[in-house]
Amino acid sequence: MTFAPAAATVGMVGAGQLARMTQAAATALGIRLRVLAAHADDAAAQVVPDARVGDWGSLTDLRAFAAGCDVLTFDHELVAPEHLATLAADGVPLAPPPEGKLLAQDKLHQRHTLAAAGLPVPAFAEVAAPEDVRAFAQAHDWPVVLKSARGGYDGRGVWVCDTAQDLPARWAEAVRAGALLVEAHVPIATEVAVLTARTAAGATVTYPVVETVQEDGICTETHVPARLDPAVLARASRVGEAVADAAGAVGLCAVELFVADDGAVLVNELALRPHNSGHWTIEGAATSQFANHLRAVLGWPLGATEATAPAVVTVNVLGPEATSEAQGGLDPAVRVPSALAAPGAQVHWYGKMPRPGRKLGHVTVAGDDHAEALRQARAAAHHLGGEEGSL
Amino acid sequence: MTFAPAAATVGMVGAGQLARMTQAAATALGIRLRVLAAHADDAAAQVVPDARVGDWGSLTDLRAFAAGCDVLTFDHELVAPEHLATLAADGVPLAPPPEGKLLAQDKLHQRHTLAAAGLPVPAFAEVAAPEDVRAFAQAHDWPVVLKSARGGYDGRGVWVCDTAQDLPARWAEAVRAGALLVEAHVPIATEVAVLTARTAAGATVTYPVVETVQEDGICTETHVPARLDPAVLARASRVGEAVADAAGAVGLCAVELFVADDGAVLVNELALRPHNSGHWTIEGAATSQFANHLRAVLGWPLGATEATAPAVVTVNVLGPEATSEAQGGLDPAVRVPSALAAPGAQVHWYGKMPRPGRKLGHVTVAGDDHAEALRQARAAAHHLGGEEGSL
Repeated sequence: MTFAPAAATVGMVGAGQLARMTQAAATALGIRLRVLAAHADDAAAQVVPDARVGDWGSLTDLRAFAAGCDVLTFDHELVAPEHLATLAADGVPLAPPPEGKLLAQDKLHQRHTLAAAGLPVPAFAEVAAPEDVRAFAQAHDWPVVLKSARGGYDGRGVWVCDTAQDLPARWAEAVRAGALLVEAHVPIATEVAVLTARTAAGATVTYPVVETVQEDGICTETHVPARLDPAVLARASRVGEAVADAAGAVGLCAVELFVADDGAVLVNELALRPHNSGHWTIEGAATSQFANHLRAVLGWPLGATEATAPAVVTVNVLGPEATSEAQGGLDPAVRVPSALAAPGAQVHWYGKMPRPGRKLGHVTVAGDDHAEALRQARAAAHHLGGEEGSL
Repeated sequence: MTFAPAAATVGMVGAGQLARMTQAAATALGIRLRVLAAHADDAAAQVVPDARVGDWGSLTDLRAFAAGCDVLTFDHELVAPEHLATLAADGVPLAPPPEGKLLAQDKLHQRHTLAAAGLPVPAFAEVAAPEDVRAFAQAHDWPVVLKSARGGYDGRGVWVCDTAQDLPARWAEAVRAGALLVEAHVPIATEVAVLTARTAAGATVTYPVVETVQEDGICTETHVPARLDPAVLARASRVGEAVADAAGAVGLCAVELFVADDGAVLVNELALRPHNSGHWTIEGAATSQFANHLRAVLGWPLGATEATAPAVVTVNVLGPEATSEAQGGLDPAVRVPSALAAPGAQVHWYGKMPRPGRKLGHVTVAGDDHAEALRQARAAAHHLGGEEGSL
């Protein structure tokens, strides 16, 4: 028997911050991580020796990348379903498998599949013309939400029509995005996310429900524990786990949920990979989402998911609108130590060029008191984002 | 102002497991870590893109390595003092500075310096011949301990003489190691370590005192909190901090201390770098020793050091004596998932070739109950080490 220096080789398509943070978990576990980067200076390519530059849109590049990997996984939803099917037919172990990935990629397919499985989703319909939207609104009332079936995330691919008068303008914008669905507008009290790690054999572990704060469709803060009724949290958790099973997830499954004013829970978004709403787990949970993703895609035993502090707050840092000014203001040699002046702040900087709205880093504070953790995390994030503020 | 993608560039001489674990902390903080590896497959070279293969014994290699680094630090004690002095004279920022490093490298110099600073060390003397040892034993009684002034660690460079009859044989072994000192044998109740992170400006943070369990001079387990009287812990902590100041440490300073039967505390060993006794901080403290080492060498604000769980146990995995058998038995593709079956076990595998006594990995368990954490950590470490046992 030859000695193997690595416990496994995992290929991750994409080299953003999710792959970058996966590398820390891989290092501890003795796993060799290989990433497929679009550019040599992508966030993960800066910290992964086996970073290969290639095109995730090219089947040739994907096949070359997969060769020698024990399993192929993803830090984004962008690989074409037909390429995934071909790789699976080649015998490449994909985590998640192509059918699961398609649920995260095609919202119309996802809504049909989850509804058929008896899982709660907003009322929805496929639409081909403005008349279809008006007919839907007659049944479900205005406002309604137009969504592109594919390619939407971080608030992109979503158009709210408050009234019938809004429809022509919204339709004109939306129809360029291709296949469309319309959904009832849910009067949202709170948004939460449920993260489940699942192996191909069906073993699962689920993290405490995380409360997410969204601005313009982008998650800006997460709070653990979520400040909701325990019965609502238990319902959300059950739905999240059921979605992971229905999707046949292998690896992390992140389910974003609307909690309506009446406590009803509805599936909003789905990602079969580590997720922004789980960054708190690096310092705040017994096992990080990145470690459990790796363990799950390899079929290894999953790790404990409980929170390790009474309150864990994560605040994201987004690229400011004034990009040129921000490039000076966001010099990490100044900003990272400035953020660290908050003694409990765990600072993560992704090494990315600032662009407006782009996720550049995050700060987590775990502590005994939620208000104090929130104060420290926000102050540190302001400093990390190049804004003025006191720590 | 040009945009800098990294918050800093830190050069670490050496590419063992300490540098490997430093990379995870560097990644989070947006720091570019560069390591000087003896071989391309060293533990850290496997996970650091900017790994440069070179000889830490060569001034030419050290100079080339240091070029472009904001600061140079170390994962071992092996660089010659004269090379450090030359690099410092070149203007390379060294953390720790050469004078501090020499205290960790030369035990005789260290004993003299710490004793002169009023810090508690075992009774000691420089010896050049067996007669000197006999004279020392007349004053301090047998047993005595012969130590090589340089190059000793993990139990190497230490020879215990229980009686005058042992001396000729021990002397013959020891004298080959060069300059020697003799020390009084301390009747040890417990060994502990104090880790302090210190900036060049003198800012410090100190971790809770860690109890270390040694076998044949190698640390096999650490326990936090140490199971000792609070007054003894407070004394140990004060001595550790005073040593860090006396040494002019920049970065981590790990002070290993004997606690005698009467509660007296004596300095045993000193390392000015991250240390095996601090691995528990990765999962068990608010800020890991690796993050605080980086923050300290860069002069950044230091992070909180409190333990995040009531009990944190780390068990080291050493290469077994039967190396050839172990190479099969230690296949990490089998051993790592096997160890992960203990649900709270945080498993670290260093990617090193097994050799007898070599540190190959460790397991940390943080929990509410010390006995349960110890049970889980030992069971997982047994599996990681390729031994039979139940989880």
